[in-house]
Amino acid sequence: MDFLEEPIPGVGTYDDFNTIDWVREKSRDRDRHREITNKSKESTWALIHSVSDAFSGWLLMLLIGLLSGSLAGLIDISAHWMTDLKEGICTAGFWFNHEHCCWNSQHVTFENRDNCPEWNSWSQLIISTEEGAFAYIVNYFMYVLWALLFAFLAVSLVKVFAPYACGSGIPEIKTILSGFIIRGYLGKWTLIIKTITLVLAVSSGLSLGKEGPLVHVACCCGNILCHCFNKYRKNEAKRREVLSAAAAAGVSVAFGAPIGGVLFSLEEVSYYFPLKTLWRSFFAALVAAFTLRSINPFGNSRLVLFYVEFHTPWHLFELVPFILLGIFGGLWGALFIRTNIAWCRKRKTTQLGKYPVIEVLTVTAITAVLAFPNEYTRMSTSELISELFNDCGLLDSSKLCDYENRFNTSKGGELPDRPAGAGVYSAMWQLALTLILKIVITIFTFGMKIPSGLFIPSMAVGAITGRLLGVGMEQLAYYHHDWAIFNSWCSQGADCITPGLYAMVGAAACLGGVTRMTVSLVVIMFELTGGLEYIVPLMAAAMTSKWVADALGREGIYDAHIRLNGYPFLEAKEEFAHKTLAMDVMKPRRNDPLLTVLTQDSMTVEDVETIISETTYSGFPVVVSRESQRLVGFVLRRDLIISIENARKKQDGVVSTSIIYFTEHSPPMPPYTPPTLKLRNILDLSPFTVTDLTPMEIVVDIFRKLGLRQCLVTHNGRLLGIITKKDVLKHIAQMANQDPDSILFN
Amino acid sequence: MDFLEEPIPGVGTYDDFNTIDWVREKSRDRDRHREITNKSKESTWALIHSVSDAFSGWLLMLLIGLLSGSLAGLIDISAHWMTDLKEGICTAGFWFNHEHCCWNSQHVTFENRDNCPEWNSWSQLIISTEEGAFAYIVNYFMYVLWALLFAFLAVSLVKVFAPYACGSGIPEIKTILSGFIIRGYLGKWTLIIKTITLVLAVSSGLSLGKEGPLVHVACCCGNILCHCFNKYRKNEAKRREVLSAAAAAGVSVAFGAPIGGVLFSLEEVSYYFPLKTLWRSFFAALVAAFTLRSINPFGNSRLVLFYVEFHTPWHLFELVPFILLGIFGGLWGALFIRTNIAWCRKRKTTQLGKYPVIEVLTVTAITAVLAFPNEYTRMSTSELISELFNDCGLLDSSKLCDYENRFNTSKGGELPDRPAGAGVYSAMWQLALTLILKIVITIFTFGMKIPSGLFIPSMAVGAITGRLLGVGMEQLAYYHHDWAIFNSWCSQGADCITPGLYAMVGAAACLGGVTRMTVSLVVIMFELTGGLEYIVPLMAAAMTSKWVADALGREGIYDAHIRLNGYPFLEAKEEFAHKTLAMDVMKPRRNDPLLTVLTQDSMTVEDVETIISETTYSGFPVVVSRESQRLVGFVLRRDLIISIENARKKQDGVVSTSIIYFTEHSPPMPPYTPPTLKLRNILDLSPFTVTDLTPMEIVVDIFRKLGLRQCLVTHNGRLLGIITKKDVLKHIAQMANQDPDSILFN
Repeated sequence: MDFLEEPIPGVGTYDDFNTIDWVREKSRDRDRHREITNKSKESTWALIHSVSDAFSGWLLMLLIGLLSGSLAGLIDISAHWMTDLKEGICTAGFWFNHEHCCWNSQHVTFENRDNCPEWNSWSQLIISTEEGAFAYIVNYFMYVLWALLFAFLAVSLVKVFAPYACGSGIPEIKTILSGFIIRGYLGKWTLIIKTITLVLAVSSGLSLGKEGPLVHVACCCGNILCHCFNKYRKNEAKRREVLSAAAAAGVSVAFGAPIGGVLFSLEEVSYYFPLKTLWRSFFAALVAAFTLRSINPFGNSRLVLFYVEFHTPWHLFELVPFILLGIFGGLWGALFIRTNIAWCRKRKTTQLGKYPVIEVLTVTAITAVLAFPNEYTRMSTSELISELFNDCGLLDSSKLCDYENRFNTSKGGELPDRPAGAGVYSAMWQLALTLILKIVITIFTFGMKIPSGLFIPSMAVGAITGRLLGVGMEQLAYYHHDWAIFNSWCSQGADCITPGLYAMVGAAACLGGVTRMTVSLVVIMFELTGGLEYIVPLMAAAMTSKWVADALGREGIYDAHIRLNGYPFLEAKEEFAHKTLAMDVMKPRRNDPLLTVLTQDSMTVEDVETIISETTYSGFPVVVSRESQRLVGFVLRRDLIISIENARKKQDGVVSTSIIYFTEHSPPMPPYTPPTLKLRNILDLSPFTVTDLTPMEIVVDIFRKLGLRQCLVTHNGRLLGIITKKDVLKHIAQMANQDPDSILFN
Repeated sequence: MDFLEEPIPGVGTYDDFNTIDWVREKSRDRDRHREITNKSKESTWALIHSVSDAFSGWLLMLLIGLLSGSLAGLIDISAHWMTDLKEGICTAGFWFNHEHCCWNSQHVTFENRDNCPEWNSWSQLIISTEEGAFAYIVNYFMYVLWALLFAFLAVSLVKVFAPYACGSGIPEIKTILSGFIIRGYLGKWTLIIKTITLVLAVSSGLSLGKEGPLVHVACCCGNILCHCFNKYRKNEAKRREVLSAAAAAGVSVAFGAPIGGVLFSLEEVSYYFPLKTLWRSFFAALVAAFTLRSINPFGNSRLVLFYVEFHTPWHLFELVPFILLGIFGGLWGALFIRTNIAWCRKRKTTQLGKYPVIEVLTVTAITAVLAFPNEYTRMSTSELISELFNDCGLLDSSKLCDYENRFNTSKGGELPDRPAGAGVYSAMWQLALTLILKIVITIFTFGMKIPSGLFIPSMAVGAITGRLLGVGMEQLAYYHHDWAIFNSWCSQGADCITPGLYAMVGAAACLGGVTRMTVSLVVIMFELTGGLEYIVPLMAAAMTSKWVADALGREGIYDAHIRLNGYPFLEAKEEFAHKTLAMDVMKPRRNDPLLTVLTQDSMTVEDVETIISETTYSGFPVVVSRESQRLVGFVLRRDLIISIENARKKQDGVVSTSIIYFTEHSPPMPPYTPPTLKLRNILDLSPFTVTDLTPMEIVVDIFRKLGLRQCLVTHNGRLLGIITKKDVLKHIAQMANQDPDSILFN
């Protein structure tokens, strides 16, 4: 009962790749809190300790916000610089990126702000010219070379120093938050290597984003900072509250969306999310966002590259193309999940998985070779999204804004719909090629042994589709403004259609299709635009996309990867819909040998040790007697082994024939019998029980809501069997016609 | 087990003022869903039924959004018109309010937009003049008369037709959502009367708001619309999901804040909030907001009167006054809750409560008499808040904007800090008097037998304080811009301090102090301003306010009113911190007679009827035999009574000596014995059990998370006692040194 004092080191801790017992952890925290509160009345020092303990959560949130905001700023700045390094270098100082290099330049006009003598492309440096086919080949070659170098460094660092640093990390974080232990997944090495390799991976030009991995980075910060506070270091449940908040901070800096981050953490990653955590998460997310803003990585006091501010209204009829974008997003999401999972399964099961470096280098080489000739694939994906979201203003020099009569404004600076110029048409073709490349290459990229996020590639796919549709609609409205569908609201020379808005809606739809986020997605996009009036288009697209994708496959990408890896994750969103009973799931099965139990006052140390060595169960019920099968409590294998070992070492005379007592008082023993071993202190006296006729839907609910590891099954008051979390997960998989052996861990 | 077929009408329903069993309700819904899914494979018609069933939730949300948005618009428009009716009438058409009347007028200039010949004050109508003391007295008299008339109508309608229509309704809705039954509280009469009386109460000029009652109105809409859908009509748990969403829609229209509304529902009112509901709530909130926007009650395409858009930045040093406002908000919140609860308790326990009409008329008379002479109390509170939030622009003619050199802009239309003119000084005095009046009168107003919300009066108190402090700071900065604290960022002639922002922060602080909202408060205020940069001031004030108020008393106003009314509400936010065990709480107590149990196969109808008539327990455990005390299941009193009555009526030969069997098969009976009564179908075969040594903190957690009504207690496999929700609540009250008998209902 008294876990607080922990008389024997190790009792009450968990093995790697095991599930924690939420009830026990929360009890321990309450015991701790109670002790501090009681002591606080005794002395001033204890009072100060009690107050500082109460505020340590807030301090921790502040630190997490500061650290993850700073790291996000660092990653943004370095990735920007290294992405530009693939194209050239600044002679005014190699540490300047392209934009920064030309800011400081004297020799640059506003129209030509990207061309300054200080910035030298590789062909200029090597063969002193920018013109001609040879210069193009030199630049091409250098581009591919740098990409390969970055990718090689990234994959080697991950392989050698921190294998956990690969991927987006969100599936694992979801599993950890649900109560699983993966030691080192959120450790300092993972943090350092993930931060470095994330920059390398993003800079290498692969089709991946930094947004998902930023959540992992923030969670690492949270986990490491937990070690500074007793309250959180020792308690797995409390630490998971902190990690939930850290995940919110990660999304907050990734998208500049503090509210969206909190909702993302609530909706997508967190498992146990008390309201206290909501408020603290919000605080952490806000601190992180403001830290990033004061670092100002993009020089425009925005937190993300693709922030936009639209002001043009949209029209009800436009819901039709928005819903079409939603359907596309859902289809793309479902298709992506299937093909990506199939490819990842191939990687796991065939020889392919043994050569991660070669795989990464191959994909990087293909990406770089195909990307360079097309300016929309050559630029970084965030820049591409930013350009696609952008509503063409008067001063935009991009090809996407190359309309005819582009300097002909109607009134008040508002740009009317115009016929597309040659630039727009060529941009359309290039974008279509970009779309195909992104769609194909992302399937092979996500899941490689480098840090890789999925938000940005998904958004890019959606944004391209949206922009293509938007420009198409715009031209249709321009040339056919007398059509019935247009003429009520789209007069000639008016600005009816905003292609940038279509890009944004498309991005939301694709992101929704892949991740199946709902509220958090809409709120994140809302915070990216800052206008309440675009919520309806975004929501229509997100809803359609989720419905379409769900119809083709229930799982989002993160759940699919959790299942692929066999983690014991009990999905909180799905209702268990089958009519099975606890007796159908419990062990032992009907024809199996009886349940292995310990008796409370008649087994010797040797008996128990035999049971331990002959079975692999992680815990044993303790009963009054084998005949009555009346339950007394539950004891964990790990605690039992540690305690017996400890007693044999330290307690005089405990031998194999000593009797183990789980009762409160051991009866007086005749002289010359070996001393008894009392183990009531490691016995869980309040194990959860259900009857054998309890529907499994209720059992699943109990496991989910209380965070149990196991539950005992009784019939008319007699102990009959046991259901573990793994049994529940296997049963769920079986009922869903999946392979129950895909659940690998306890 | 088979609740679905409900062979006997009434089995599985609840009495008024009783708690529902969440687990059973959810099981029933899953059974229903399973049946529809299974049938859907059989015929096309069943498939259509299954699809329409799946989408009925969304349709319901759409209807709730439309209805509550329309009602909110109706309330806004009528309240606006009736508030103006106290001052005069429009001759161009009595149905125009003051603003609308003068919009349509030909004889009005922009500067003088509130004075048009069509609008006649009562003195003009009655004695044909607006000048002089007599006209003032006539207007004064008419103002008080109308106020009294409105208040009288409101309180009479409430008293005669729908006593549940009084108050804000949020405490009761919280209780209902936690699983309590109050029949008629969300019925059609309550809806109709609450809508009408809310308009009357707001128009009477009392210190109350329409925001809280709007949540009640929206929940009534939700509840009534549930009757159109089988899925929701018959299931108490599913209906509560709908009510949570309706509450979100209510806040959404009250503050024009859909995201804030969802978070309010999640944080403040809801109990069981699955993620599916989050998404649907968001949809309902959005539909409601857009419905209201298309009604456009204020003619400015904003959803609320006091929407503002600030653009001036704030400075880090200003956090000091913002935190001061937070402290004020916390103090006011704690003070208000204490005095208001004390007054309400007095009302409940003394003669005062018997004369609600006289009480309302007295308070109205006092309010009206004191309010008329001061223009800030005479105007409606929302208008006051709107004026206080407003940043003085060039064209503002309000006294609060009467600065010296007011038409002297510095650059680009930005207004610099200026010395206050005479108007500002006199406004300050009037605002100080308004503050005192509002503080005092709100304590007596909230809790009277009319619809009354607390958001607006709290916000008004905070906004006045904030504005006073803001103007003070502004003048300080103007006259002492060389002080060290100002001179780094506040040069002369610059616009350093925005008094409107202070008003907004103050409003957030006071609202936070009273309601103890956190995230939802900040998000609502954020949606009111639309600028992410003001989140930090708002959050600082809200946090300070909550901490200060919590230090003086843990409960928010709604929880305090729940406790005052003795509702069985199990607070989800507070951890149970005491180290008691289930055996300390369970019934029977140590020296009480044994637990009343039924045996599974040896009691006659008469035995059971005796037990039913001799006890008042709402359920009985069924055991194998009295000696073994081995638990079989749990049967509810209500189901038992209905079943026996039904059997006696319909089943041939069931007499008092018939034996009741709860077993699966009854043994063959000798001939000439009376037929047996088999009641296994009403037996809950999966009752929840805990051991007697389970800590109460875990028991409380189980009750909370699973929504139990009762839980059985065992010791070593034998049934020992029972813990009901009421026992848990009484125990919590006892441990908190409160009167355990304050819990009135089951």
